[in-house]
Amino acid sequence: MVDRDMLEHTSSTNAPSLDRKRVYTSPYNALALSGDLPSAIRIFDTTLRDGEQSPGIALSCSDKVKIAQALDELGVDVIEAGFPIASPGDREAVKNIIAENLDSRICGLARCSRRDIDAAIDCGLDYIHMFIATSDIHLQHKLKLTRDEVVEKAVTAIEYAREHGLTVEFSCEDATRTDLEFLKKMHTVVQDAGVEVINVPDTVGTIGPPAMEHLIRELMTVTNVPISVHCHDDLGLAVANSHAAVRAGARQVHVTVNGLGERAGNAALDETVLGLMAFYGVSTNINTSRIGPISKLVSRLTGYAIPPTKAIVGSNAFAHESGIHVHGVMGAPSTYEAFGPELVGVQRNIVMGKHSGAHSVRSKLSEYGIDLVDEQIDQIVEKVKRLADSGKEVDDAELVALASHILGERESRKVKLKEFAVFTGMNTTPTAMVSIEVNGEKKTGSAIGIGPVDAAINAIKSVMGNDIHLVEYRLNAITGGSDALCEVSVRVSRDGDKTLMSVGKAIGSDIVQTSVDSTMEALDRLYCRKE
Amino acid sequence: MVDRDMLEHTSSTNAPSLDRKRVYTSPYNALALSGDLPSAIRIFDTTLRDGEQSPGIALSCSDKVKIAQALDELGVDVIEAGFPIASPGDREAVKNIIAENLDSRICGLARCSRRDIDAAIDCGLDYIHMFIATSDIHLQHKLKLTRDEVVEKAVTAIEYAREHGLTVEFSCEDATRTDLEFLKKMHTVVQDAGVEVINVPDTVGTIGPPAMEHLIRELMTVTNVPISVHCHDDLGLAVANSHAAVRAGARQVHVTVNGLGERAGNAALDETVLGLMAFYGVSTNINTSRIGPISKLVSRLTGYAIPPTKAIVGSNAFAHESGIHVHGVMGAPSTYEAFGPELVGVQRNIVMGKHSGAHSVRSKLSEYGIDLVDEQIDQIVEKVKRLADSGKEVDDAELVALASHILGERESRKVKLKEFAVFTGMNTTPTAMVSIEVNGEKKTGSAIGIGPVDAAINAIKSVMGNDIHLVEYRLNAITGGSDALCEVSVRVSRDGDKTLMSVGKAIGSDIVQTSVDSTMEALDRLYCRKE
Repeated sequence: MVDRDMLEHTSSTNAPSLDRKRVYTSPYNALALSGDLPSAIRIFDTTLRDGEQSPGIALSCSDKVKIAQALDELGVDVIEAGFPIASPGDREAVKNIIAENLDSRICGLARCSRRDIDAAIDCGLDYIHMFIATSDIHLQHKLKLTRDEVVEKAVTAIEYAREHGLTVEFSCEDATRTDLEFLKKMHTVVQDAGVEVINVPDTVGTIGPPAMEHLIRELMTVTNVPISVHCHDDLGLAVANSHAAVRAGARQVHVTVNGLGERAGNAALDETVLGLMAFYGVSTNINTSRIGPISKLVSRLTGYAIPPTKAIVGSNAFAHESGIHVHGVMGAPSTYEAFGPELVGVQRNIVMGKHSGAHSVRSKLSEYGIDLVDEQIDQIVEKVKRLADSGKEVDDAELVALASHILGERESRKVKLKEFAVFTGMNTTPTAMVSIEVNGEKKTGSAIGIGPVDAAINAIKSVMGNDIHLVEYRLNAITGGSDALCEVSVRVSRDGDKTLMSVGKAIGSDIVQTSVDSTMEALDRLYCRKE
Repeated sequence: MVDRDMLEHTSSTNAPSLDRKRVYTSPYNALALSGDLPSAIRIFDTTLRDGEQSPGIALSCSDKVKIAQALDELGVDVIEAGFPIASPGDREAVKNIIAENLDSRICGLARCSRRDIDAAIDCGLDYIHMFIATSDIHLQHKLKLTRDEVVEKAVTAIEYAREHGLTVEFSCEDATRTDLEFLKKMHTVVQDAGVEVINVPDTVGTIGPPAMEHLIRELMTVTNVPISVHCHDDLGLAVANSHAAVRAGARQVHVTVNGLGERAGNAALDETVLGLMAFYGVSTNINTSRIGPISKLVSRLTGYAIPPTKAIVGSNAFAHESGIHVHGVMGAPSTYEAFGPELVGVQRNIVMGKHSGAHSVRSKLSEYGIDLVDEQIDQIVEKVKRLADSGKEVDDAELVALASHILGERESRKVKLKEFAVFTGMNTTPTAMVSIEVNGEKKTGSAIGIGPVDAAINAIKSVMGNDIHLVEYRLNAITGGSDALCEVSVRVSRDGDKTLMSVGKAIGSDIVQTSVDSTMEALDRLYCRKE
C-alpha cells in the first residue's frame, strides 16, 4: 500500500509555483513530457549528514542548528540531521535540532544494528534512515557477509526499530551495482518488515539516466512504498539521474545544498528543484527565493566556496561580460537567461571586462545613480581594461568603487585613512597602528592580532569604537606568483541597528593594505549612510 | 549525404578504450542501451572561445598556444581557437595556434558577415564556426530581424565562405528555443548552401535531456550532414544533454576544459567523455590519462580554481575521509570508486579528518616510507583531530609535513629560518628581512616587494641565491573572519635541473608567516634531495 500520508504535504498549495511569464525555458520540454509525472515530490536534504562527510567539513553544533533552521525556512520535507552513532557531536546536534520543533521532519542515519538504532532513539528521533550494502563488491570486500546474512540483518534491525515506534526509510547501499533479482528481493523483504520509504542510492555515482529510469521502473514492479533516490555526482550526472528517477516513478529525492557530499558530492538541491519545475512541471515545497541565501550560509559555515561556474547560485550564473551578451541582456534579460535571478534570490551581475566600452560602463553606473562626464567615463574604462588584461573581472561593487574614487577627487570622504603601518615576524606578535580621520577629527590607535591582517583590522576597530563589527571577511583565491592581485571583500555592521550593514571591496597586490582599504571603504559607506 | 570524411579519424583505433577490468560502473547501463549508438564521436573543444568568455579570463597569446598544444596532445578533434573579429589578441592567437601545425583541426567563430569571415581568412583559418540567432526572443530583442532576413543573411554568408574555400560548421543560436518548423527550415537551407556540420546550441541552458532527445530526433529527419551539440550548464544539465543528443543521433559535442564558458559554463570535457565511454560505450580520440594535467593547466592559466567537488578532476573526487569509506577503499578501491584515478591522470587522496584514527594515519605514512612509534602516531592523530575540529582536512602533503615535524625533533633540517621580520603600511614599501641557516652557515638579507608576502619571498630568494625560483604560489580561499586559517602551498625549483622541483605547504593564521613557512619547507626538501 502506498503511504500517501508521507507525501501529503508536498502537494500543499503554499509552495510557490514557477510563474511561466518569468521563465523562458525551451518549449521542447513540454513536448517531451511523459504521461505519468507527479504534480509534486518530496525533498530530503542530507547536507548535515552526507554533505558534512565532505573532506574537511566539521560543523559545530550551533552551525548545524543554523543550517537546519534555514532548511526548514527553505521548505525541505526531511532534514537528515546526522549519524547519531558516529560521534557525540552528531548526537548533540540531532538533539538540538529536534528541540527547534521545525516543520521539516528530522531524520538520522543508522546501520542495521541495535547500537545504531538505540543511539538514534536516545537523541529523540522518530524517523531513521537505515542502510546496508547489497552489491557483491561491498558484500565481498567490505561487509564480508553472504546475501542471506544481509537479509537477516536488515529484517532484524527493521523489526527492532519498528518495535520502538520508529518510521524507517531504508537504503540498499550501492543499489545501482546490486544484482537486480537480489535488489528486488531486498525491496520486498524490507517493505514486508514495515519500512515506509525505500531509497535507491547510486552510492558511487556510476549509473547514467537511461539506466536509472530502467532500474526504477523495474523496482516499481515490486515496491509498494514510495521510492526515493540518492545520487552521487562522480560522473557529473547526479541531478540528471535524480530527474530520471522521478520520471520513472520516484517520489522523493535526496539532495544537499551546493551539492556537497562524499567525493564529487550529491545532487545539488537548487539544480534538482529548479529542473523538476522547469522541465517537468513537478513542484516541491521549496521556496526558491531562499535558495541563494541558504547557499551562501552553507558556503560560509562549511568553508566550501560556491564555484563561480556553479549553475544557478555561482557568481557567474547571472554574470554577463562579452559585448554581444551584455547588449542582449540589457535589452531583454530573457535573451541570455532562462529565468530572472530574483526567482532564486540572487543578483544579476553585468561584469566589465576586456570587451566593455564606455556605453556599458555609463549604463551600469547610471543604475546606481552615478552620472559622470565623458572624460571620467574614459578614465574608468581605461582602468577596467587594465584590470581585465591582468585577468580580473570588475563587478558592480568594484565599478562603483572605481567611480567613487574618480568622484572622490572632488568629494571628501567622511572616514579617511591618514596613517597605517604593520609589522610581523618570527617570535613577534603582529602589531598594527592606524590613524583615521572621522568627520575631520583624527583618532590614532594600535592593536595586536594573530596575523598582520587581523592586527590591522583590530587596530581600525580600536579606533572606530567597539560597536563596529567585522561580519564577514573574504579573500578570493590567489593563484599565480606571490605578487598576484588579491581581492578582499568585507562586511561591517554596527551594534543596535541591523540595517546599518555595509560592504567594502578592494583589489591590490599587498594583502594587508588591500584588507585595510576594503574595510575603510565599508566604514566610509556606513558613516555616509548613517548621517 | 553524410560527410563521413569529417568523422573518419574519430574511429581510429589509437584512442584508448576503457579497460572494463578497471571500471566498476553500474551493470544497468548496458541493459538500457539503445540500438543506434555510434562507436565513436568527435570532440570539439571551445575552451579558447566560449571558455575564454567566462568573466575575468583574459589569456595571453602564449597561454592560448600552450592550451592548444595540450588540447592537441589530449586528442580533441577540433579546437575553436577564438573569435577573430573580436580583437587583435584573438587574431594573433589564432595565427600562432595555426602555425603550430597540430593534429587537431583549428576553427574560429564568425557571425554571418563578410567582415567576420574576412577576419577568419586573414588569420589563415580554413574552418569556421558561423552562427546566427533564430529564436523569436533573439530576433525581436537582439537582432531586430525577420525570419526571412535571417535566412537571407545566413545563406549569403555561407556562400561567401564557401567561395573562399572554407569548411563551415553552422549554429542556429538559441536553437532550443527556436520554433521547430523554422529550425528545420534553417537546417535545410544551410546544408543546401554547403555547410558540413550543423551544431545545435542550447545557448541559455534551458532544455532537459528528454526534450533534447526529442529535438535532435526531429532535426535528424531533415539534416543530412552530421549534427553537433553545444550545451550550457545553467540548470546543471550540460553533460546530460550532450549525452542525450548523442543517443538521438548527434555525432559531435562541444565541450570545454573544467566546464568553463559563459555564465554556468559549457559541458565539461572530462565528464562528457568519461560518461560516453562508461554509460554508452561511445569512444572518442581523447587520451583520458591527460585529463588531469590539462585540467590543472587551464585552471592555472585562467585563474579559475577547480572546484573541490567537481566530478573526476576535483580534489575531492578521489578523496575519502569518513571511517567507513576509507576502510572500504583501502580494502578494494572499487567499493567507493567507479574507476581508478590513474585512468584520468589524477591521484587518490585519503584525507585525514575527524573520523581518522591511528590505523589510517599509520597506514598512510607507511606508504611514504615513514614508520613512527605509537607515541609519535598518537601525537599526529591528536594534531589531525585538532585541525579537523577547526574545519581543516589534512591531505597527504600535510600529513607527511606533520610527521616530518615530529621526526624533526631528532633530525636537523638543512635549511633553517633563524630570524624573520616584515613591515608594510601606508606610503611604505613593504620590506622584509630574513636570516637563514644553510648547512650551519647563517646568511642574512633583505628585500622589498609589492606586498609583505612578496617582500618576504624576495628576501628568501636574495639569501638563497638567484637560481632559486618560485614556480607557483597558491593561497587557498579564506572565508570567515580576518583570523581564519589560511593554507599556502608553494613550488620551488632551481636553475639547470628541472627534476629539482620541490613542494611546501603550511597552514596558519598569519598569512606572511605561513607563506614563509611553506617556502622554507620546500627549500629544505630541495636541499635534502640535492645532496
